[in-house]
Amino acid sequence: MLSLSKRAHENVSESVKEFEALRWRAGAVSRDPDRLAVEEPLEIRLAGRRFTLTMRTPGHDRELAAGFLLAEGFVGSSDELGEIRPVPGPRGEPEPNAIDVLLSVPAERLRERLKRNFVISSSCGVCGKTSIEAIERRIARIEDKVRISAAAILKLPAMMREAQAVFSATGGLHAAALFALPAANGSSNGAQSASLMVPSLTVLREDVGRHNAVDKVIGYSLLRDMVPLSDAVMMVSGRTSFEIVQKAASAGVPILCAVSAPSSLAVDLAQELGVTLVGFLREPNFNVYSCPERILT
Amino acid sequence: MLSLSKRAHENVSESVKEFEALRWRAGAVSRDPDRLAVEEPLEIRLAGRRFTLTMRTPGHDRELAAGFLLAEGFVGSSDELGEIRPVPGPRGEPEPNAIDVLLSVPAERLRERLKRNFVISSSCGVCGKTSIEAIERRIARIEDKVRISAAAILKLPAMMREAQAVFSATGGLHAAALFALPAANGSSNGAQSASLMVPSLTVLREDVGRHNAVDKVIGYSLLRDMVPLSDAVMMVSGRTSFEIVQKAASAGVPILCAVSAPSSLAVDLAQELGVTLVGFLREPNFNVYSCPERILT
Repeated sequence: MLSLSKRAHENVSESVKEFEALRWRAGAVSRDPDRLAVEEPLEIRLAGRRFTLTMRTPGHDRELAAGFLLAEGFVGSSDELGEIRPVPGPRGEPEPNAIDVLLSVPAERLRERLKRNFVISSSCGVCGKTSIEAIERRIARIEDKVRISAAAILKLPAMMREAQAVFSATGGLHAAALFALPAANGSSNGAQSASLMVPSLTVLREDVGRHNAVDKVIGYSLLRDMVPLSDAVMMVSGRTSFEIVQKAASAGVPILCAVSAPSSLAVDLAQELGVTLVGFLREPNFNVYSCPERILT
Repeated sequence: MLSLSKRAHENVSESVKEFEALRWRAGAVSRDPDRLAVEEPLEIRLAGRRFTLTMRTPGHDRELAAGFLLAEGFVGSSDELGEIRPVPGPRGEPEPNAIDVLLSVPAERLRERLKRNFVISSSCGVCGKTSIEAIERRIARIEDKVRISAAAILKLPAMMREAQAVFSATGGLHAAALFALPAANGSSNGAQSASLMVPSLTVLREDVGRHNAVDKVIGYSLLRDMVPLSDAVMMVSGRTSFEIVQKAASAGVPILCAVSAPSSLAVDLAQELGVTLVGFLREPNFNVYSCPERILT
């Protein structure tokens, strides 16, 4: 059984964290330092009032806030933008994940713009969140004892590509797939059996938004009374963010694989929620970022 | 000068549109059919009331709605999910971009969940929108007469990669860059001069979220009074969605380039707003999806 030191990462810079990952390289396993892009929430305030929350890579937060306000139509020019200042924390030091913007927009015009942009009480994977703590209160830690072999994991990308009829046509779609683990899993000698068995594809969905593709496979399962997905492996194209881990864990998925890199917060959340997180899954290699005990070598 | 027939696309299936694009292939230009992933808004209603709006690829909308509600904590199991039904349009036919979900959640519990998930009046690039029409009312069509040579466009990816110090370390970050077009642009003989000149990098920003990277470069410009960015080319890593075009046009960017594919709605919006949209920009090739007259061969 493999193990990883928990929270083995530390900040190299504002936007990169050092992290210890397990690497499969053509069959050999090593414990190597890896680097993760930092993902943290930023709360943008307008004149002291909470306005929006976005998940971002720290750095250039003033620019992010100013650009967001222009790009989303809340300010029309730099004239309408006042001071952008840090938010003081409990001991007076600046809060690292909050910023306050003063606007020079007449109150009535701002109300009109807010109304236009908030016609729908909006929610999305990134915005409606308050914090990782709120997620942890909502989602139970996944304790499933399912096992999968490294050989089986390495077969998933090809199975996913075969099913991606649309992707080859446009190059523009994200995909999420669910695979069912063999039934022997969880029984007394399941671990041994599992190492020889390859999961079968349950469903694959594609979308311009990766979070939508994930929502679709979860919805497919929910509508068929398959949730919690205790015997499933989810695979997503591209990267893994906080949001994707949260969605997978909501549906009880114990193993989440991705073609590309996870963010720092994706790894933190996967560790907290007991999700096995695999990244850079490209035959014959992959990395493991959390709960490696579910993977048999 | 090159041209493209406007709105030259039609639906091949729910999720793919045929489209005529201009392709540069090692110096030769052809007008070829291309396929775009369809992107359309979906309004999710709860018992008839507008609840949220997401940009998605049509198809499997019931699953998307069900999965979204579970993944975001509004339902806890399939028991709490009632009928998911189409929304009738003005003539009784189902609205293609709306869906209504009935929940079996006690009113008080639902209120509590809504409150928990909407603590912050949220807004993001995807959610806060009502429609493409609202965007068109807010953002003026870009009429800038700037020109850029195909040779100069082909140099942008290498310039961007060089500036991406963090990307090479983590593989997990999106990037957005702004390039300044040479000053000769816009003068009487600007077109000729521009064909020999390569834009210079103004700023590059990275983030786990592509929309954040774009917000950051726009914010950088806004804070330096450089908006509207009439003489700028924006380049983004990955794909171009509706949201990215909208953000670029908000800041007056006339030319937007991306490493990968645009969505259908990104192309529609770029055409409506007069943005030159370049995709699959990988030396020695690129595709043009809108306003090709700004590109000199």
